Amino acid sequence: MIKDILDSVRKTNPIVHNITNYVAANDCANITLACGGSPIMSDDPEEVEEITTLCNALVMNLGTLNPRKLEAMIKAGRRANKLKHPVILDPVGIGASSFRQQAVKELLNTVDFQVIKGNISEIKTIGKKKTICKGVDASEIESITEDNIEGAITLATELSKDLGAIIAITGAIDIVADKDLVYIIRNGHPSMRNVTGTGCMLSSIIGVLVGANPHKIFDATVTAFCIMGVCGELAYNKIVEKFQGSGSLKIHLIDSVSNMDYKILEEKIKIEKFFKN
Amino acid sequence: MIKDILDSVRKTNPIVHNITNYVAANDCANITLACGGSPIMSDDPEEVEEITTLCNALVMNLGTLNPRKLEAMIKAGRRANKLKHPVILDPVGIGASSFRQQAVKELLNTVDFQVIKGNISEIKTIGKKKTICKGVDASEIESITEDNIEGAITLATELSKDLGAIIAITGAIDIVADKDLVYIIRNGHPSMRNVTGTGCMLSSIIGVLVGANPHKIFDATVTAFCIMGVCGELAYNKIVEKFQGSGSLKIHLIDSVSNMDYKILEEKIKIEKFFKN
Amino acid sequence: MIKDILDSVRKTNPIVHNITNYVAANDCANITLACGGSPIMSDDPEEVEEITTLCNALVMNLGTLNPRKLEAMIKAGRRANKLKHPVILDPVGIGASSFRQQAVKELLNTVDFQVIKGNISEIKTIGKKKTICKGVDASEIESITEDNIEGAITLATELSKDLGAIIAITGAIDIVADKDLVYIIRNGHPSMRNVTGTGCMLSSIIGVLVGANPHKIFDATVTAFCIMGVCGELAYNKIVEKFQGSGSLKIHLIDSVSNMDYKILEEKIKIEKFFKN
Repeated sequence: MIKDILDSVRKTNPIVHNITNYVAANDCANITLACGGSPIMSDDPEEVEEITTLCNALVMNLGTLNPRKLEAMIKAGRRANKLKHPVILDPVGIGASSFRQQAVKELLNTVDFQVIKGNISEIKTIGKKKTICKGVDASEIESITEDNIEGAITLATELSKDLGAIIAITGAIDIVADKDLVYIIRNGHPSMRNVTGTGCMLSSIIGVLVGANPHKIFDATVTAFCIMGVCGELAYNKIVEKFQGSGSLKIHLIDSVSNMDYKILEEKIKIEKFFKN
Repeated sequence: MIKDILDSVRKTNPIVHNITNYVAANDCANITLACGGSPIMSDDPEEVEEITTLCNALVMNLGTLNPRKLEAMIKAGRRANKLKHPVILDPVGIGASSFRQQAVKELLNTVDFQVIKGNISEIKTIGKKKTICKGVDASEIESITEDNIEGAITLATELSKDLGAIIAITGAIDIVADKDLVYIIRNGHPSMRNVTGTGCMLSSIIGVLVGANPHKIFDATVTAFCIMGVCGELAYNKIVEKFQGSGSLKIHLIDSVSNMDYKILEEKIKIEKFFKN
Repeated sequence: MIKDILDSVRKTNPIVHNITNYVAANDCANITLACGGSPIMSDDPEEVEEITTLCNALVMNLGTLNPRKLEAMIKAGRRANKLKHPVILDPVGIGASSFRQQAVKELLNTVDFQVIKGNISEIKTIGKKKTICKGVDASEIESITEDNIEGAITLATELSKDLGAIIAITGAIDIVADKDLVYIIRNGHPSMRNVTGTGCMLSSIIGVLVGANPHKIFDATVTAFCIMGVCGELAYNKIVEKFQGSGSLKIHLIDSVSNMDYKILEEKIKIEKFFKN
């Protein structure tokens, strides 16, 4: 799986349109390049339809949202849908304001997303809006552990059934699921939380991999999680070895992604796959 | 003092709302994480009141200002005041345009700040507006030296009396003062000026420390200056040792903040405290 | 030539106003500091005229453009023209949207640029608007090679004659030309394409060097290209030596610029100069 996904990236060098926040934009662009894609950042309604037309995938990230950027997201999303480009939603901080909740509601009503990626709290917020959380026991989950993972999986598969998108949940344990199939990924390192925007960077990597693999979106999303998880571990090992801190952690992370190949990935991934129901 | 301030940060993991410029936003977020806080960057009037409600402190930074961001600052500042969250003002480049001067005037009229932090030129500009500079001999000071420090201290204490905020002045010598009490900090290294946004990062560190210590705002502000000064020295030593330059200096700075503990700080700080009048 | 240009930078410490995109803004500010300038980033129509008045040069970069930023560019550009400050245009991604093409048309109609810097595709797009590409055989060039360089040079000199600006084209081979004189620079390394914003950073370096050398704009632009090319090579050597990746490449690039002196430059530049016609 991984080798095929990465080979396609190498062959197509996909261009990814990121409508993202200004905090992580530079890191998102650099990680896009590091994993074999080409980034275009553009967030003005005047031009996003043309921009996204040139691209292979579209990533929308809710950080530092404003009404004009939301308008751009809707325009770009509709155009990408028409062109059958994969569209990824990262509902950053959706729980933090009613503006962001309203924005996600509007986006879900107007754009078809192929992948929705967030932490458990963000995905729960979407689940609640969809009244899916009521039926499952995920509403109490603060972070995914071996003890509560069943509830998180049910949330992911139910939400996927409802929205028709792959649901990807980040945490100490990651979950990538559609309505039937579930992957659990146990890579990464807690220190990655000490670097801002690692979640945003993951979304950009997903954009590159699904942009190059539009017919294997599930596998591409899982591979993106593996890259981020394994590279996070490699980066953490480096800072321990060199007595460094969180500034260096980001640099090692981008370095590791730029030097990644499928052999390192396949050796280090801790992944579990099963069918729900 | 320092140990208590840092212990509170560790216990509370304060969330800090930054309304800041897009040049330093990433570094501000990473330094916030490095010193033990959690950053939220949001600058749209649609959501800043809700966002700041979730936080422990609010930092306003005038870089890349625009009218919409100013509106957001006023809304967020009023809400933070109501909730008794500490509010920090960093009047970046106030002298560079009448728009920024007008903005600070409006902010001072509508929001109560607990800390105002700037370089001598920025603080002088505020002092002139308040006609405080006329009375003291700070108006000629270009940068704080042992020879002119008396004038700078008088400016700080007079301005603090007038505005009811702690006044913190950065420079080769730093001053943190309220109307009665003055700290002089002689840490840091001139090479820090070769990295953009070190002043903005310091404001974010102040946000974390006062957010965790809302009843010890003075001590928390002084501690933030000590962290930045000492970590600047450590970072400079690293680049000399490794024959590096200003790109690495920023990385070492964030590394040093993320590895900082009170023992290193207490060993290295050069601080002087006295009562004015 | 190089020594004089760099000496002027050291003497004047030029302030450069950047109206740039939020993706590369931090790197542009840091590279400005690294090569001896002082950056001001400001993009709001409310204040750009006052801001640019304080500066020695103005750099406009079309990344993450929006109508408000365009309005700011026009205002700042006119003011800079009045004050005889050098103005640099970096038409990032002009081919990607009609909004950007329209913007460049408006900018060329209202502002006099002293330097226009882009990759071959961007410069070709400007050439086509000016119907210059029709007359020369550059229209087929995807990237500059030894085989097609004649066409690229003709494009540059013709466009320079038409616009009255120095035309600087980046690529595996770089060209800096006015209507009569051409420099070809064969420095740099392909790995620099793996770092976002290296083109934007080059524009900021040009801003610093022409800001300090307003009467030697051609030599200053050529020197900026030499700095970027040579430092890119030095940075690439470092990551090979240390088994690093594209995250570290950016850090080494900024380090190299901050440690650059004319002797290293003169030793390593591969430059060719000749008169066209």
